[in-house]
Amino acid sequence: MTITADQRAELDQIRSATFTTRRATVPALEEILFEPLPVLDHGFVRVIDYMGDDSAVVQAARVSYGRGTKKVSEDEGLIRYLMRHWHSTPFEMCEIKYHVKLPIFVARQWIRHRTANVNEYSARYSILDREFYLPAPEHLAAQSSSNRQGRAGVLEGEEASRVMDLLREDAERCWRDYAWMLNEEIDGAEPVDPSRQGLARELARMNLTLNTYTQWYWKTDLLNLMNFLRLRADSHAQYEIRAYADVMVDAMERWVPLTSRAFRDYRMNAATISAPGLAVLRRMLAGEAVAQPDSGLSPREWRELMAVLGRPA
Amino acid sequence: MTITADQRAELDQIRSATFTTRRATVPALEEILFEPLPVLDHGFVRVIDYMGDDSAVVQAARVSYGRGTKKVSEDEGLIRYLMRHWHSTPFEMCEIKYHVKLPIFVARQWIRHRTANVNEYSARYSILDREFYLPAPEHLAAQSSSNRQGRAGVLEGEEASRVMDLLREDAERCWRDYAWMLNEEIDGAEPVDPSRQGLARELARMNLTLNTYTQWYWKTDLLNLMNFLRLRADSHAQYEIRAYADVMVDAMERWVPLTSRAFRDYRMNAATISAPGLAVLRRMLAGEAVAQPDSGLSPREWRELMAVLGRPA
Amino acid sequence: MTITADQRAELDQIRSATFTTRRATVPALEEILFEPLPVLDHGFVRVIDYMGDDSAVVQAARVSYGRGTKKVSEDEGLIRYLMRHWHSTPFEMCEIKYHVKLPIFVARQWIRHRTANVNEYSARYSILDREFYLPAPEHLAAQSSSNRQGRAGVLEGEEASRVMDLLREDAERCWRDYAWMLNEEIDGAEPVDPSRQGLARELARMNLTLNTYTQWYWKTDLLNLMNFLRLRADSHAQYEIRAYADVMVDAMERWVPLTSRAFRDYRMNAATISAPGLAVLRRMLAGEAVAQPDSGLSPREWRELMAVLGRPA
Amino acid sequence: MTITADQRAELDQIRSATFTTRRATVPALEEILFEPLPVLDHGFVRVIDYMGDDSAVVQAARVSYGRGTKKVSEDEGLIRYLMRHWHSTPFEMCEIKYHVKLPIFVARQWIRHRTANVNEYSARYSILDREFYLPAPEHLAAQSSSNRQGRAGVLEGEEASRVMDLLREDAERCWRDYAWMLNEEIDGAEPVDPSRQGLARELARMNLTLNTYTQWYWKTDLLNLMNFLRLRADSHAQYEIRAYADVMVDAMERWVPLTSRAFRDYRMNAATISAPGLAVLRRMLAGEAVAQPDSGLSPREWRELMAVLGRPA
Repeated sequence: MTITADQRAELDQIRSATFTTRRATVPALEEILFEPLPVLDHGFVRVIDYMGDDSAVVQAARVSYGRGTKKVSEDEGLIRYLMRHWHSTPFEMCEIKYHVKLPIFVARQWIRHRTANVNEYSARYSILDREFYLPAPEHLAAQSSSNRQGRAGVLEGEEASRVMDLLREDAERCWRDYAWMLNEEIDGAEPVDPSRQGLARELARMNLTLNTYTQWYWKTDLLNLMNFLRLRADSHAQYEIRAYADVMVDAMERWVPLTSRAFRDYRMNAATISAPGLAVLRRMLAGEAVAQPDSGLSPREWRELMAVLGRPA
Repeated sequence: MTITADQRAELDQIRSATFTTRRATVPALEEILFEPLPVLDHGFVRVIDYMGDDSAVVQAARVSYGRGTKKVSEDEGLIRYLMRHWHSTPFEMCEIKYHVKLPIFVARQWIRHRTANVNEYSARYSILDREFYLPAPEHLAAQSSSNRQGRAGVLEGEEASRVMDLLREDAERCWRDYAWMLNEEIDGAEPVDPSRQGLARELARMNLTLNTYTQWYWKTDLLNLMNFLRLRADSHAQYEIRAYADVMVDAMERWVPLTSRAFRDYRMNAATISAPGLAVLRRMLAGEAVAQPDSGLSPREWRELMAVLGRPA
Repeated sequence: MTITADQRAELDQIRSATFTTRRATVPALEEILFEPLPVLDHGFVRVIDYMGDDSAVVQAARVSYGRGTKKVSEDEGLIRYLMRHWHSTPFEMCEIKYHVKLPIFVARQWIRHRTANVNEYSARYSILDREFYLPAPEHLAAQSSSNRQGRAGVLEGEEASRVMDLLREDAERCWRDYAWMLNEEIDGAEPVDPSRQGLARELARMNLTLNTYTQWYWKTDLLNLMNFLRLRADSHAQYEIRAYADVMVDAMERWVPLTSRAFRDYRMNAATISAPGLAVLRRMLAGEAVAQPDSGLSPREWRELMAVLGRPA
Repeated sequence: MTITADQRAELDQIRSATFTTRRATVPALEEILFEPLPVLDHGFVRVIDYMGDDSAVVQAARVSYGRGTKKVSEDEGLIRYLMRHWHSTPFEMCEIKYHVKLPIFVARQWIRHRTANVNEYSARYSILDREFYLPAPEHLAAQSSSNRQGRAGVLEGEEASRVMDLLREDAERCWRDYAWMLNEEIDGAEPVDPSRQGLARELARMNLTLNTYTQWYWKTDLLNLMNFLRLRADSHAQYEIRAYADVMVDAMERWVPLTSRAFRDYRMNAATISAPGLAVLRRMLAGEAVAQPDSGLSPREWRELMAVLGRPA
């Protein structure tokens, strides 16, 4: 993570100011408010604002005049009930806003979650910094031969170092040429050549590689945050976006601990079992030794079901 | 507006508690936080939470690390620029949540604004109070004969009083029969008859009239709030929903005064002039005396244009 | 279902016209296109347009230039894979449009599904017909005492007939008074009294009961249709909206048979088992006799899990 | 535009098949259905499906049982009325689906329009072709010095040719290295080296430049299409996305000619005039010679208003 001294000063200043409010406030989240939480080599997630807490979920479900909360155990019971029975609207009553710095190829996956508000740093208007994502050696994954969108093992030796060199050199050359085409005063670039006009920013940016870092403000409600995290903190998600989701899961824990616990139990660590899968399960519970060929499931579904049940396929 | 003593106590309790926060806080809005603002005969709007302020708009547009604001005049200039050029995403960075009590027929208009989060009091689960909207005499409008969805004048004399009687009697009878069918302990209803089962709540509610009051929590972002207010605080909106929108415009003024001013200038009190309308305007500004028949506009469009220009049609 | 002779003629005319198209076309759905499928006592669902078929899902997943489909078995395999792994966007590539006639209280539940397009018949602009939903005797459910939003048994004898009378009389009186207040030429209402102005339509409608029928055009994509049907064709949904969902499930079967099958297996008849539930399941499969008290589940969750597994609670 | 012989054959096959349907069908749009319309150097837009026509707008506004259309002149009048008065829902009743090939930096602007359905070609799963956008000489724009996100003039001579060389060389080198890292059988790349594992596709793609072409299926309704086109076919939009929007405006003309005409008159070629702007206008129409300093408008707003009115600033 790269934060300049000026940015650090801004952060300290913003973090040191406090105000008095009648709104629901969450001290555990306030602790990390505005602070950049590092992700990957230069990225971060900063929680920069929030609205509501666990009680706001309860309050909305009860459409109450006051805090609407009762004993903590009753509130937790209600939250778990809502989660289990797929009630969605009470969880939409909490909102959170982040400032995120992330590689462009990660931003392109992220933006597919449409029920959110986004303001991205504009490369049409501004100049992007010379910062690129380069995988750590343990994340320089080889292509899986069985799963077209999967990884298998890690590149090693000469191949690994050649790949790292290419990623670094190509990103740097592209950025250097981008800066040359712009012909503006830019930190780390050549001085301006007054005999040249300079290419429009909105065009020059097309020369950058997809691991260049961008930034945005991203705001969503608690329901859609959970939808995002369920998919992106999952083991099938690409490692690079999962790194962001993992940090966000931790911040969510600070914000709405009761909802977080219900989310883990009923979403993240739960499993959906298909109708044919349930039929298999019932036979097994009745004592039958079911094997894939007579299960009615395809080999792939059979393996997935056995994995969920913690049994050998 | 009908607030019970219990509800008043809850409100006072919630209003008296204050907390310390690092979040942007708006004292003018905090003043009215949680307080029911009366609308119509029994309805209200309560602002119950908010996120962000005018600075949050500026901050998002600049994707900044700190408060992102500069001098107030520069911030206002940027907000006006964003509004004028239909930039939408920075205004999505602020969020507001209301508790609203409103007649069902108003709720049905309101819900058509889909980009919002809603939790309505459930008549499937709970019992609705005996409260109905009855228009004040000055709002007992006659049907317009020229505009099928418009009003023209006000009913008077015997017709007015007969209409008022019917509205009141029908609403009350329907509620009384609703309560009878439920056969539960309800304030203002007959005692429970232990020999009867009672109709399911989810069915009994169908006997209520559309002026019965319901309540909901409604949460939206500043952009969609403005879209709502532009349509519903407009003179073409039905009076009953406009009464709510007007109160919300005032609360918005407290919350985001710079955005509110820009909103009035570039949305509420602005006018969109069509391509043919602009052609007419250019001819008029060049000194030509244009009349409807040679304007290229239909009579109706001509009248609308002259109204915008403050000229006789 | 009440269709006038004029409407029937319009339907026959629209159904008899055919056109030539290059678009994907589904004969089984074309068969019922435009035809009102009866629901409840006066309601209906009419499929009035559609875009795409099962192949469009496959095509989108493959971003292909042509039909993008391979053998039916491969296409079905892909669709089942997408459904099982919660891929959502390929299912958004199909669209369907309905004309629905439904009681207002059902419309109020339905409209909570926001990701859809709606045009409702406007009672501000037009006059509503004298048609109300009255439950058939076998659906005149009593209130459940254990589940506040549930039904339990059916009202019988005198109570049933009194409830039916009240529902009918109140709806009819309210409509009659609505018509009287309007003072317009309306089928089934008194003649116009020229000495009266008539109340504005947008006001008079508030006198109607919530079982009055309304109509709308409702359009959504296949993904959101499935989200709707999963909740509304479910046994926990109120009977009256389920009656609509059931008819729509059948029409979906005609439209996209492969997707429908996957939908039944992986959504409608599937079950989500929580993390604590999975732990119980593993113990049971390992031969342990688990009982609720040592299961880590609440009594309610235990009952729900046993129901899913087809075992006594 | 680069279409392989195989793709051409698929297109011809899909274009030659016709079906019989009861749905509204638009011959002028059917003519170009599936056909790639060239955009930029290698891009295209293909209309691949649609639902509804001008009549569907009218039909929805009237919630009719049949075609719902009357005389063409009445239908057009209604469509113009709906457009003028910002009625939105009837235009949501038509839907269109495109297959688009476009540079990644254009895709990143495009995706900000969230109310649409998207399936993008996955570079996590598949391998991207060696195709990059390189501006034609007349679009190699210089940076504007007055407008930070604008263009001013065109690069010429040596600067232009050096920029073109850099764009080409960097894109090609990055793609070549991408292909090397993948170590798979790829047209135009080196043969596979069996001693290397090959980098995971989801990682290798990060080495590509932002002018690399991607493809997607993009589906939206007519209202949101117009929102997209109003912003992206506008002179302030970046040339490269405008090139796509222009082609889509033409296709829309074929599809819904009445709506298109209204869209041009009331959206694309209309102007919104602010409250202070209207005040100026009224003074001018009353014969006053208003100048910027006494107009109450900022210099920038004054220039914008004069431009709309076709007068010297």
